[in-house]
Amino acid sequence: MNKTEPRTLAGTMELLPSEQILFNQMKQKIENTYQKFGFLPLNTPILELSEVLLAKAGGETEKQIYRFTKGDTDLSLRFDLTVPLSKYVAKNYGNLSFPFRRYQIGKVYRGEKPQKGRYRELYQCDIDIIGDEELDIINDAELPSVIYTIFKELGFDDFTICINNRKILNGLFENINQKENATDILRIIDKIEKIGKEAVIKELQDLNIEEKSVQKIIDFITTKGTSDEKIQMLESLDIDNKTYAKGVEEIKQVVKYIRLFGVPENNFKVDLTIARGLDYYTGTVYETFLNDYRELGSVCSGGRYENLAQYYTDKKLPGVGISIGLTRLFYKLNELNLIKAQQKSISQVLIIPMLENLEKPIALATDLRKLGIKTEIYLNNKKLKAKMKYADKLKIPYVIVIGEDEISTNKIKVKNMETGEEEICTLDASEIIMKIQ
Amino acid sequence: MNKTEPRTLAGTMELLPSEQILFNQMKQKIENTYQKFGFLPLNTPILELSEVLLAKAGGETEKQIYRFTKGDTDLSLRFDLTVPLSKYVAKNYGNLSFPFRRYQIGKVYRGEKPQKGRYRELYQCDIDIIGDEELDIINDAELPSVIYTIFKELGFDDFTICINNRKILNGLFENINQKENATDILRIIDKIEKIGKEAVIKELQDLNIEEKSVQKIIDFITTKGTSDEKIQMLESLDIDNKTYAKGVEEIKQVVKYIRLFGVPENNFKVDLTIARGLDYYTGTVYETFLNDYRELGSVCSGGRYENLAQYYTDKKLPGVGISIGLTRLFYKLNELNLIKAQQKSISQVLIIPMLENLEKPIALATDLRKLGIKTEIYLNNKKLKAKMKYADKLKIPYVIVIGEDEISTNKIKVKNMETGEEEICTLDASEIIMKIQ
Repeated sequence: MNKTEPRTLAGTMELLPSEQILFNQMKQKIENTYQKFGFLPLNTPILELSEVLLAKAGGETEKQIYRFTKGDTDLSLRFDLTVPLSKYVAKNYGNLSFPFRRYQIGKVYRGEKPQKGRYRELYQCDIDIIGDEELDIINDAELPSVIYTIFKELGFDDFTICINNRKILNGLFENINQKENATDILRIIDKIEKIGKEAVIKELQDLNIEEKSVQKIIDFITTKGTSDEKIQMLESLDIDNKTYAKGVEEIKQVVKYIRLFGVPENNFKVDLTIARGLDYYTGTVYETFLNDYRELGSVCSGGRYENLAQYYTDKKLPGVGISIGLTRLFYKLNELNLIKAQQKSISQVLIIPMLENLEKPIALATDLRKLGIKTEIYLNNKKLKAKMKYADKLKIPYVIVIGEDEISTNKIKVKNMETGEEEICTLDASEIIMKIQ
Repeated sequence: MNKTEPRTLAGTMELLPSEQILFNQMKQKIENTYQKFGFLPLNTPILELSEVLLAKAGGETEKQIYRFTKGDTDLSLRFDLTVPLSKYVAKNYGNLSFPFRRYQIGKVYRGEKPQKGRYRELYQCDIDIIGDEELDIINDAELPSVIYTIFKELGFDDFTICINNRKILNGLFENINQKENATDILRIIDKIEKIGKEAVIKELQDLNIEEKSVQKIIDFITTKGTSDEKIQMLESLDIDNKTYAKGVEEIKQVVKYIRLFGVPENNFKVDLTIARGLDYYTGTVYETFLNDYRELGSVCSGGRYENLAQYYTDKKLPGVGISIGLTRLFYKLNELNLIKAQQKSISQVLIIPMLENLEKPIALATDLRKLGIKTEIYLNNKKLKAKMKYADKLKIPYVIVIGEDEISTNKIKVKNMETGEEEICTLDASEIIMKIQ
């Protein structure tokens, strides 16, 4: 028979079991943290009606979408978790309690050209807090504490949550009569980290912004100092439009409350260069960097938006949210050797029967499982050596060999596969647990 | 602005948070059990190359597939978790330890006509044990103990795991010279529960099977009695081909070991009518029924196959597996009122600040979270009544109101929202935990 080559689509992640265990542990830590802050789980479909999913989209997003018809139905695979949330909140408005705090961890799809580290199928881990008509600014300060808790849980210490406010930037642009160019300017200054100050200046000049204003933008976004010093600088500037004043007031509040939420000084800062390209952010914006690995880009981003579901409802639903691109993060951390798959098995104990009558070994496995121990019993008829090799390869922490002798003497050895040490006890599950914990 | 109606595609499941919590709890119980038996996690892509995914498919399966092109790439959404497993094992053969025990819980896609209880996007929860060249029959007896553990965990007592063996049926067909009609006969007798004995007889007659043989098939599959009596009957029949003898030997072994694995007599039985339509099963087959709700059909099915990955590799990879269609099961149990969403929040504690300075309330929330308590703090500026209403609606178990008095006296009330009882303690997280556990 002709064989088909067993290939996996480029741009999708398919891991070996040991890597999958590690991936799942990271995912679980993120989920546990989201739950610890009381976020509710959602699981919206991956497959949606194109009409609904693309109510807003256009331009680049639309080109990247997996869209197709089946029968008469025009379908798309979701490209983020925000649009499905908008639809969900608009649809279920009457059944939700506000502020509505939800998390969703799931796959999204983007028709990227496959290249290293670019994914077509990727996990996003999102939280959002949605208010009904209004949402206090303190919520914008709670999310950095979620980010902080997650990256600590993931084992990082040296990371910075960078915070800015779109209103401050927009107020500045208004002040220099560049309101119409706001989107372009934001797009350009967002690249300062990547392309450098000189290139940003050049691109701003290309927009026909006068020299003085270009200088003002550059001075503004490159201000040095602590968060408090930056806020002082913001307050001292002679800019007196409402947008600007509101933005400064908001960032002051956010910084004040981030501290109350227990995020240490060296894990957050006001960074006036952060703009986020996405045009739906209207206030606070976040990006998070691992300081020793700035080249990864932001590992957790988000911000405040004024109107979550405007394409579906007239209700005003302001919100604030963050997203972690887990698939990419996992890939990058793995590539940098910052994480390493260690655990190769789920089982804590492997029972190896070396006798005809399996009654006792099977009963012991069942007892251990009942007591919560993940237990495997080797059920194929092989020589002891082959069975031990299986335990070795999978690095199962404890092995118990049971033969006729062990049954007749009611004495077994619990072997610690890492140290090679053996502890003797009876064929009793609760006694065994004492030896392995 | 024109609004798009926020609709969800028919045939996909989108739940309210309380239902989602319940769904996730069921999913978690299944996953925990799979892990308790030492199965390794896999997470293969939903999006695959059509060429790879459809290496075998044809007929009905192919028609139901979501298949489309993006650029030059012919893509499909997976329709089960078995084909991706085949590809995975063939691809990663050298990196896996055999027997390879894996679980995968994920969404699969079927282009069904949408109707009540039929899903286009649905969760399957699968486990399989794959051998390299060979796989002992005892593995076929371990899976029913996994099924048993899961349905007990899900709260069921009165369910039956029905077991048969394809070789027995094939041996019978060989004996009555109906080997060529085997597939058709299997398809027909598989329907006996649905269409009744008379209709099965008629359909068998339509295949031009002689009266005597039809009678033999019917007598055979309608044998009454205990599992042991059925096995005795099977042994007493005058059928002397190898296939039949092998099948009887296998089912004897499976029944013997199912008992050793601790599955009670009333939760399993030999059922000679179980055939499973899918033609890749070659030995043991399983179906599981909730006895008071036979109309649900099988809630967990599977079986033994001789060659998992024959479309991708020459390696002989026999396996045995089961699958739970969780989305459909959840829908049906919900419809029958057998499960009921109770929990409306993830949070165990809601802190309601009623003062200007949020330092202490926020610090308490942070402390509780550090001690593992899922804690929410109400951050919007509302009247106490509105804040309590939020707690009520979400049924958050404990509420702590913190105002100026509570701070100055260092005394708070921990209110049990179900009983209305209040316990007094200080603003200390570990003291509070004592009151809520």
